[in-house]
Amino acid sequence: MGLGEFERIDRFFAPLSQGAGGAFGLTDDAALLPEAADGSAWVVTVDALVAGVHFLPDDPPDLVARKALRVNLSDLAAMGAVPYGYTLALALPKGLPDPESWLEGFARGLRADQDRYGIHLLGGDSVSTPGPVTLSITAFGSVARGGELRRSGASVGDDLWVSGTIGDAALGLGVLQGTLRVSAADAEILADRYRLPEPRVALGPALVGLATAGLDVSDGLVQDAGHIAERSGVALRIEAAAVPLSPAVRRCIDSSDPLRHDALSGVLTGGDDYELLFAAPPASRDRVSEAAAAAGVQVTRIGRVEDGRGVRVMAEDGRPLQGLERGGWNHF
Amino acid sequence: MGLGEFERIDRFFAPLSQGAGGAFGLTDDAALLPEAADGSAWVVTVDALVAGVHFLPDDPPDLVARKALRVNLSDLAAMGAVPYGYTLALALPKGLPDPESWLEGFARGLRADQDRYGIHLLGGDSVSTPGPVTLSITAFGSVARGGELRRSGASVGDDLWVSGTIGDAALGLGVLQGTLRVSAADAEILADRYRLPEPRVALGPALVGLATAGLDVSDGLVQDAGHIAERSGVALRIEAAAVPLSPAVRRCIDSSDPLRHDALSGVLTGGDDYELLFAAPPASRDRVSEAAAAAGVQVTRIGRVEDGRGVRVMAEDGRPLQGLERGGWNHF
Repeated sequence: MGLGEFERIDRFFAPLSQGAGGAFGLTDDAALLPEAADGSAWVVTVDALVAGVHFLPDDPPDLVARKALRVNLSDLAAMGAVPYGYTLALALPKGLPDPESWLEGFARGLRADQDRYGIHLLGGDSVSTPGPVTLSITAFGSVARGGELRRSGASVGDDLWVSGTIGDAALGLGVLQGTLRVSAADAEILADRYRLPEPRVALGPALVGLATAGLDVSDGLVQDAGHIAERSGVALRIEAAAVPLSPAVRRCIDSSDPLRHDALSGVLTGGDDYELLFAAPPASRDRVSEAAAAAGVQVTRIGRVEDGRGVRVMAEDGRPLQGLERGGWNHF
Repeated sequence: MGLGEFERIDRFFAPLSQGAGGAFGLTDDAALLPEAADGSAWVVTVDALVAGVHFLPDDPPDLVARKALRVNLSDLAAMGAVPYGYTLALALPKGLPDPESWLEGFARGLRADQDRYGIHLLGGDSVSTPGPVTLSITAFGSVARGGELRRSGASVGDDLWVSGTIGDAALGLGVLQGTLRVSAADAEILADRYRLPEPRVALGPALVGLATAGLDVSDGLVQDAGHIAERSGVALRIEAAAVPLSPAVRRCIDSSDPLRHDALSGVLTGGDDYELLFAAPPASRDRVSEAAAAAGVQVTRIGRVEDGRGVRVMAEDGRPLQGLERGGWNHF
């Protein structure tokens, strides 16, 4: 017989709530959030992940835990919020061969990223399911009230920026699925970026007061740019040549001439980047660069906000790139 | 082809966020909680439900939605918190025959209980799963800081109280599973109590400052009494004859003489009651009764807090009832 629910909570989860007084060591029906700092607001975001859909069923449980946390931290960063803690709902398959070992690894992953990002488990619910591992995390952070970054707010004339590099995760998924062949070294780099995104928790809050609109790129650069365009009532123009690419992604695009367009298209629409895409007025360029340097994150200007609607991606020859439609979100 | 994720959000979920300004119509990555009232704190609770485990796979989706919400509202009430809103993570089976119709019913159920309890949807995530319908709700409420009801805090000499009646839901599950036969009228009453609990949202906050400890009865009266005993470091004595029973439950116990003990045991340990179990000093009896009357809820004194550990349920002959052990939580 495995451990009961209470023993599982005591052993694996209660230790993760230490340091958050309002979590009461997970002994009660609910948790208390501390008082928000003067003038700041609590930000709440939720993401659900299902084995076989959002991660591979045999992914190590510590990586599953960390990816689930990071996806939520990325949403907080996109709003400009500083992360504080999270609640967890976890459904484990009844037939899981060794649930204690899985939970041990899962809790180890949570602990690693709790320490990395300075957050705590505030509460949770653990149930069994006849289906696959399913988990949902609700994360909490705080932002200066009125300073939150929204998808609306981008103005004509603003620069369009993106953090980090784009496309690594999408190509990493291709590597893991066996549809893309690259060198062993590049395969590892790209797969790692898919398995474990790097939420821009320091950059997001630093953009409050500088960026006019922003979000995190999870559906794909072009699609998510479409969300900003739609909500801000503007058009976004992206210069394909300006989109920052890692050496591994650049090698991948350069080395496969006949696939060049496919690889570039995968990079621009592939998703899972968890980089911040944001608009800011040209007058703020220096301050954006300084904020990014202070956060230790590279940022790149990839385009600008124009009159109109939708997203246009321009090739180096100055003509719009075709064939990037996906999901009906990039209107040319 | 069914609707895409964004169209589903627009059609079914965004309308449920109206009235909560910080939800931004579900257009952004996260939501903002409003400022907590002076001296009050945000309370957070999470519950996960899985089809085939926590509800029947062919339960109507509006009932599933309402039960999921109410289970969380009951947790808030147990802490003495006034409900404000919730986030939703929903995993729908890929092969659901008519997902739009299911979602329409689900959203209708959410709407009904939002209106009933004055709450709003603040955010959500909707994904697909190869498994059964799985949902997780994180609910938010507010309580005077320091006034929250905990499982710890019960003192020797306190009265032990419970709201409403106990056992209806447990026997209702028996009816639905075909293991219990009662009259058609009683069957409907009992099954309804299982399908749709009545969270004590008005009583919970009214007990702040009166009750010394409390929780909502979800695992079973005896087991949950065990949680208070354990966390408060006391013993709880429950008089079986004092436990409030509905006419339907009483008929069930009385009419099945050979099953008398089984039925009573099912009532005391069966769970899913979502009534409030709480301790309060005898000096507060009148104020507890007045608070309950104002909340429109019956409350009954069923025992008292004593020195020692564990839970003892006394029969009418003054001897402890045997055979109530379940899950290792009621220590005699």
